[in-house]
Amino acid sequence: MAAADVLVVRHSVVSLAVAVLFVTFPHVSATRDPPHETRYFNQYLDHFNYASHGAETFQERVLVSDAFWRKEGPIFFYTGNEGPITSIWNEVGFIKDLAEKFEALIVFAEHRYYGESLPFGETTFNKENMGLLTVEQALADYAVLITNLTASYCEDPDVCPVIAFGGSYGGVLSAFMRLKYPNLVAGALASSANVYMSAGLTPGNELFQDVTEDFRRYNPRCPERVREGFAEMERLAGQGKQGLHEISSRMRLCSPLQHHADLVNMYRWVREAFTVLAMEDLPYSISNGPSLPAYPVNASCDLLLKASDGIEGILQAVGMLYNFTSNLTCFDLHRDFVPCADPTGCSLMPGAQAWDYQTCTEISLLESTNNVTDMFPPDAFTEETRAAHCWQRWGVTPRPGWLATQFWGKDLKPSSNIIFSNGDLDPWRRGGVLQNVSSSIVAMVIEGGAHMMDLRVPNPADPQSVIHVRQQEAYLIGRWIREATNQRE
Amino acid sequence: MAAADVLVVRHSVVSLAVAVLFVTFPHVSATRDPPHETRYFNQYLDHFNYASHGAETFQERVLVSDAFWRKEGPIFFYTGNEGPITSIWNEVGFIKDLAEKFEALIVFAEHRYYGESLPFGETTFNKENMGLLTVEQALADYAVLITNLTASYCEDPDVCPVIAFGGSYGGVLSAFMRLKYPNLVAGALASSANVYMSAGLTPGNELFQDVTEDFRRYNPRCPERVREGFAEMERLAGQGKQGLHEISSRMRLCSPLQHHADLVNMYRWVREAFTVLAMEDLPYSISNGPSLPAYPVNASCDLLLKASDGIEGILQAVGMLYNFTSNLTCFDLHRDFVPCADPTGCSLMPGAQAWDYQTCTEISLLESTNNVTDMFPPDAFTEETRAAHCWQRWGVTPRPGWLATQFWGKDLKPSSNIIFSNGDLDPWRRGGVLQNVSSSIVAMVIEGGAHMMDLRVPNPADPQSVIHVRQQEAYLIGRWIREATNQRE
Repeated sequence: MAAADVLVVRHSVVSLAVAVLFVTFPHVSATRDPPHETRYFNQYLDHFNYASHGAETFQERVLVSDAFWRKEGPIFFYTGNEGPITSIWNEVGFIKDLAEKFEALIVFAEHRYYGESLPFGETTFNKENMGLLTVEQALADYAVLITNLTASYCEDPDVCPVIAFGGSYGGVLSAFMRLKYPNLVAGALASSANVYMSAGLTPGNELFQDVTEDFRRYNPRCPERVREGFAEMERLAGQGKQGLHEISSRMRLCSPLQHHADLVNMYRWVREAFTVLAMEDLPYSISNGPSLPAYPVNASCDLLLKASDGIEGILQAVGMLYNFTSNLTCFDLHRDFVPCADPTGCSLMPGAQAWDYQTCTEISLLESTNNVTDMFPPDAFTEETRAAHCWQRWGVTPRPGWLATQFWGKDLKPSSNIIFSNGDLDPWRRGGVLQNVSSSIVAMVIEGGAHMMDLRVPNPADPQSVIHVRQQEAYLIGRWIREATNQRE
Repeated sequence: MAAADVLVVRHSVVSLAVAVLFVTFPHVSATRDPPHETRYFNQYLDHFNYASHGAETFQERVLVSDAFWRKEGPIFFYTGNEGPITSIWNEVGFIKDLAEKFEALIVFAEHRYYGESLPFGETTFNKENMGLLTVEQALADYAVLITNLTASYCEDPDVCPVIAFGGSYGGVLSAFMRLKYPNLVAGALASSANVYMSAGLTPGNELFQDVTEDFRRYNPRCPERVREGFAEMERLAGQGKQGLHEISSRMRLCSPLQHHADLVNMYRWVREAFTVLAMEDLPYSISNGPSLPAYPVNASCDLLLKASDGIEGILQAVGMLYNFTSNLTCFDLHRDFVPCADPTGCSLMPGAQAWDYQTCTEISLLESTNNVTDMFPPDAFTEETRAAHCWQRWGVTPRPGWLATQFWGKDLKPSSNIIFSNGDLDPWRRGGVLQNVSSSIVAMVIEGGAHMMDLRVPNPADPQSVIHVRQQEAYLIGRWIREATNQRE
């Protein structure tokens, strides 16, 4: 999950503006980024304890745009994920198109402990202040906010139906909002929402298997090349210090690997790069942030195959992410990748510490590699590994079964009006809902689609699949709005 | 709510045993009290904060009976309310009948901060330790407990559907369990569950209006007599100290009223007695606890009318509750009634302090009297009155809108499989759901029924209405069980 948000954050408004020139999204009007204002809402520090923090509050940042708003129209509410909401605002274009179509108020709410919504200011990330970072508290923030919004914007809250939107962890939250607060949210579009994985209900070897599969799909020789590179590194590492130095040199690391632990960390740094390339395997280049070419899996695979050997191939591939500026003379592992309770790392994220804490408590992301079903060196990330890290870093012990208890595990049927959309190139997809749960909890698969692709700013290179999925989404959201306002179809 | 639980607690096993001799409940087999064991489950002190109490736990008391249990059968789970679960076990007979019929495991879970389930032992009721007494924490306890129970008793949790049961505040909790944890609870029987009133969504003058109406229904002269008594007290009180002393003497108070505030308190003490008589207006006598005759409304009304004047009439009526032993020589207001954030008082309850705290934070019970729609002296219990008391007593400020936000207010439709049963003599009934919400959230009204009547131990004097309602409940619960176990009807 971490990687997506690296990108989320790096994307700038500039590139969106450039992209807009070419948009010919056929279903809704051309994307434009509506003006918005930044507001701050008082929220209780602790919704579930009246004594410890009593009436203490913090300020939650919220972006609001009434550019398309027709009085008594719907409210489109983005349930912010693990990063500054301003970055997410820039990333997510589809909601703005939909808002124009439905004359909706747009609200992007920042998740507590991220961006500017820091409950304890500068001391927010002190261990003793982290405990109130939970999914339940964040959802309660959104619930209170929605209650306030409908009360202040709509004379009759029933004619201002709220639709929740979210992608990745934010998609998980938008689905959870519909499960737990259907009184406030008429439906949810949950894009790339790994609800099952987050609750620890998936096998734990699928993420990196599907990263591998993305490369294999383009050319089966690619994952073989990666394996060769890792095998060569393993062989060198077997030679001790000298071998580690040779690996360091060939991988152009700023600081040579000293210990086996450093090597493991470098493997993860490599794995993370392949994961990002697979997640962001879009049919168009993105020139901000990681500056990836169109179809970065194919592009990096080509580099892998052109390289003189496996190690050089891996170097070229990871350079596509970590040295996208081509300015680096060496790679600083400690800058790019600090291990955390998310096996894809947290360190590049602006909300790195907070995300580490979340994956140390409620969110399970126990994804491992085994070099059999995937192309990476064996690296078991177990409940024990996780618990050891979390105790050492935060003094907390994960509660593995809790999220499934609290958010219905795989028994989502009692809910309704949720779209779970996933790109079939997104290696996170098997963490989510890929089959219809009921007639109103539907799975949509975007063929050739990447992580959170449907929510992105529409692009002329979008394949028909994502255009079609967006049309279906618009249709269902329109139906939810009509049903909520008691209009018959 | 308080009053019901006074009774809950006072009822003893002895009387149940006596009642059993006469049971001819036609639908299910004769009631018998199955043997049960007392177990203690570790629960997190705080389900929603990983830092402050981290991994600290407390022990929740749970009563379990497998007397009727067929392996892989259903689990009947009573969501304990504001009192010791042992008392509730004794009070609630219908579940045991049903359990025999459906070969169910019976589980009665004690609510945190009540009975023996005190999170901080002897210091539980210190202000700083009270914050974790919330509906959400209690429901989370039940959710964790159900998860553990199904895991330990059932090989496949799907074939052990759990049905939640509760009465009064416990009924509110059983309904909320179905709203928030339909993954764990296949349906809920919520008897006399004042879900709307608790969330502050009712007008606030209905409870005492309906107490009055219960008396008027038997004889319109009764409420008139009560009014006369209060008018005479008011006249006397207008004479100052001397008048207060005369009231004290005629009402046989142990300590004479000194100030107007004492008089207000005595009025509430009187009002509370009438409320209990109306709630417990059963067609059979209960010889334990308050030792009320059959139809105590009628009986006390007769006393009112036979008395020499209004004050004497009120004295006779309240004596039916407070002097049921006929041993008292005078009434000790401070023993019988201490004001709290529940306008019917908390003081006789074994969980008085905890209930005061709950009505000071999440639970709204802003019931007032006005002497126009009811027979009692005007006594406005406003948000301000409540807030002042709560701040002074606990240092907390109520959050009036929160329960409606969190538990769906009047928008229960997205849920399913809930029975809301109410007796039409129960003055709390208009705080609850009296009309079907959907085809599977149904309201059942027990004609001539009192508070929580359907859950009580069946009695030969039960009217056809309660027998019929219990049959309907058994039918629907059977359907929920079959549906949950994927059996077709």
